[in-house]
Amino acid sequence: MNECVFIILGATGDLTKRKLIPAIYKLIKNKKIEKFAIIGVASSPTDINTIIENSKEFISEKKIDINVINSLKNNSYYYRLNFYNTSEYQDLKKLIEQVELKHSLVCNKIFYFATLPEHFKILTENLAKHKIVEKHESTHQCSKCKHPWSRIVYEKPFGKDLKSAKEINKCISKLFYEKQIYRIDHYLGKELVGDIAIARFTNTIFEPLWNNKYIESVNITLSEKIGIEGRGKFYDEYGAIKDIIQNHALQILALIAMEQPKTLTAQDVRDVKSKVFKKVKIEKTTLGQYEGYTQEQNVNPESKTETFAAIKLYINNKRWKNVPFFIKTGKFLDKKESLITITFKQIKCLLPEHCPTDSNKLIIKIEPDEGFYLELNAKVPGRTYQTTPVIMNFCHSCLFGPNTPAAYENLLYDVINGDQFAFVRSDEIELSWKIVEQIDKSKLKLYKYRKGSTGVN
Amino acid sequence: MNECVFIILGATGDLTKRKLIPAIYKLIKNKKIEKFAIIGVASSPTDINTIIENSKEFISEKKIDINVINSLKNNSYYYRLNFYNTSEYQDLKKLIEQVELKHSLVCNKIFYFATLPEHFKILTENLAKHKIVEKHESTHQCSKCKHPWSRIVYEKPFGKDLKSAKEINKCISKLFYEKQIYRIDHYLGKELVGDIAIARFTNTIFEPLWNNKYIESVNITLSEKIGIEGRGKFYDEYGAIKDIIQNHALQILALIAMEQPKTLTAQDVRDVKSKVFKKVKIEKTTLGQYEGYTQEQNVNPESKTETFAAIKLYINNKRWKNVPFFIKTGKFLDKKESLITITFKQIKCLLPEHCPTDSNKLIIKIEPDEGFYLELNAKVPGRTYQTTPVIMNFCHSCLFGPNTPAAYENLLYDVINGDQFAFVRSDEIELSWKIVEQIDKSKLKLYKYRKGSTGVN
Repeated sequence: MNECVFIILGATGDLTKRKLIPAIYKLIKNKKIEKFAIIGVASSPTDINTIIENSKEFISEKKIDINVINSLKNNSYYYRLNFYNTSEYQDLKKLIEQVELKHSLVCNKIFYFATLPEHFKILTENLAKHKIVEKHESTHQCSKCKHPWSRIVYEKPFGKDLKSAKEINKCISKLFYEKQIYRIDHYLGKELVGDIAIARFTNTIFEPLWNNKYIESVNITLSEKIGIEGRGKFYDEYGAIKDIIQNHALQILALIAMEQPKTLTAQDVRDVKSKVFKKVKIEKTTLGQYEGYTQEQNVNPESKTETFAAIKLYINNKRWKNVPFFIKTGKFLDKKESLITITFKQIKCLLPEHCPTDSNKLIIKIEPDEGFYLELNAKVPGRTYQTTPVIMNFCHSCLFGPNTPAAYENLLYDVINGDQFAFVRSDEIELSWKIVEQIDKSKLKLYKYRKGSTGVN
Repeated sequence: MNECVFIILGATGDLTKRKLIPAIYKLIKNKKIEKFAIIGVASSPTDINTIIENSKEFISEKKIDINVINSLKNNSYYYRLNFYNTSEYQDLKKLIEQVELKHSLVCNKIFYFATLPEHFKILTENLAKHKIVEKHESTHQCSKCKHPWSRIVYEKPFGKDLKSAKEINKCISKLFYEKQIYRIDHYLGKELVGDIAIARFTNTIFEPLWNNKYIESVNITLSEKIGIEGRGKFYDEYGAIKDIIQNHALQILALIAMEQPKTLTAQDVRDVKSKVFKKVKIEKTTLGQYEGYTQEQNVNPESKTETFAAIKLYINNKRWKNVPFFIKTGKFLDKKESLITITFKQIKCLLPEHCPTDSNKLIIKIEPDEGFYLELNAKVPGRTYQTTPVIMNFCHSCLFGPNTPAAYENLLYDVINGDQFAFVRSDEIELSWKIVEQIDKSKLKLYKYRKGSTGVN
């Protein structure tokens, strides 16, 4: 039976409202968790019912189940905490214990750091210091339950650069075991991203083709139609490279490029992903900023922050030698689209004329129209040797329906079940920071682009 | 401009009525031929209008175009010929000349042998002897036109065994050039069969997988729901192996198994197909006869003719060593289906549990639902490593519409255009007869099966 207490640090933030409460709602509704309590923690004065009410509009259901909302309200609490005031942690501990007692919960706890990374260290240290989270290897015993656990979830971005990420990792590794730590990259919770490794290694036909003998190039495109949506302060400090490429794009890159793991389990997959990161060499970076960005609220009017980035990189190993990988991401582009395009090499043409001009492509669409698409050449009907590109597709939503779980529902469920497959290990985090630090922005021109355009070409 | 005279030998037969006249109708209707005449030739007393009228029900159009029918009637003639009476050929020659003159046709001629193979030799010899067909290399000149041609089409079966096929080939090769000769296998006129070689060699992704390292087995299934349909006399002499396997099934086998040709042109493709035939070794044959077959009209009540055959064979070359090919065909089976299933080897399972049980499969459906289907494993949505087989498909008829040309329309158009790609060369014919002669029916049990069943398992 799944049960736990969610302690959400940063409970008044956007993430809690938009993603976490709706995800917990879904876990309850879909009976993936039977018993629970929520303790929202933040520094502003508010109450838990307000937080729950505010999140209702982000629950993707036609008709919200009032029983689930009531259940949420009856099992949730708010605790106002100044993260930097050590003396206030003792009462948080007491509240957690009271809640556990009241709801007869067997002391499984998820601490979700839904805050900016600058608070990660102080929060981690204080939770350890006051024994709110204890270091344990799931063999830890407490009075009421056999195998209770405490797991800590760090929202992305994990640090703001290599140096800060290292500091947080160092702090964590002193206080807890890595198996208690869940570094979120919500892209890894998306169905089709989760499908990449499974599809590669449970099908015979992919691996023989998956190398520089047959693959011409790989494109990873994560484009957004929306802008920075009131996140001016955060965004202006981070920009597209730190907000998207360092995490989402590089994680997808690793899933596409990694060698075959020993098994398809967290530890082995993280091992091979890390190895990819070590071999990444950025060849070219193009940066852009949409027109009007510097007039956005909380953005420096002189800002040089990029809202668009296109990167060409190589992976210096045997499999990928000479295969360019192109990553592209941006705000206010012409369409919302997350997809991976694997372009195969052009075949030697055996036709006397009408040679096909289109290469074979495997397209993995993360959104929209999630699914696998394979572009092939087929003969035009009738007596001709002309070919035309056709698409074989496996439309994910057509088969499984559109109601596949959203990323955060998936990821919270993973944390409850102790599955770290879709979370980022400490070395991966540092290696991916190291990759983006190959980019020296001071030497790059920042191009302007129009909102609704394709960005900088 | 396409123009020619069709001289159909065996004009009162089923093939003329069901396939040839409807195919010529379509060629006219689709403006693939601008000027034409038809001379029907057979031994019974009849007239050409009767032949055309009888074929109307086999024209696959919602509404038959009366103008095309009138055009057919106005340009068609019937000549009664006793194939074995040499003196009657001179008048056939005169008639052809008169028709050409009357319709201002520039002396391109297609001689279509829509007869049983036992007449092929005598017809060939007499046409040559009376200079109705002349040996030429398309550089042949006649008074009215620059590059006229005479082409001879031999309907299948080409011979009734290796010996007779050799005799016919010997006779032909003495009198004509191979490039004048079109040995029909109407399966090669079907869109999806024509697509096999094009798809294999204009796409990058197939060839690397197309060998015994990745392929577990190949199944070729050509099953029919119908029975022998009044063809008792013919069928009882031939049976499933000579009627279907020696030609259709082995031609499909060759297209699937052949090495990469130098170019995708008739000569080179025939070269590599021949090479496959030389390496085929039949390992096992199972024969069946549907219950009630011996009561069919014109069938020997003691008949041991098979109406079902299943063959397991190997191709003894580097690419296909140890890969079994299974061919199955039969009358009165549970469904009408022509398809090729390429089953890939099971992948080494990297999952800790829930290993997929389904292998990847590429299915080429010739009919019904023509198209390419690729069976893969994909992750079941949600937090699980379970996989489920999914199908990527390229539905041919969805894209190109259901009105792709029928086989005979395609093949006649090929003959008009001098394209021998979809026709069988003399050595292929002999080699495929040689293959089926590996089967010693006298040593095999003939199993009975129920009509509408799956045959003999």
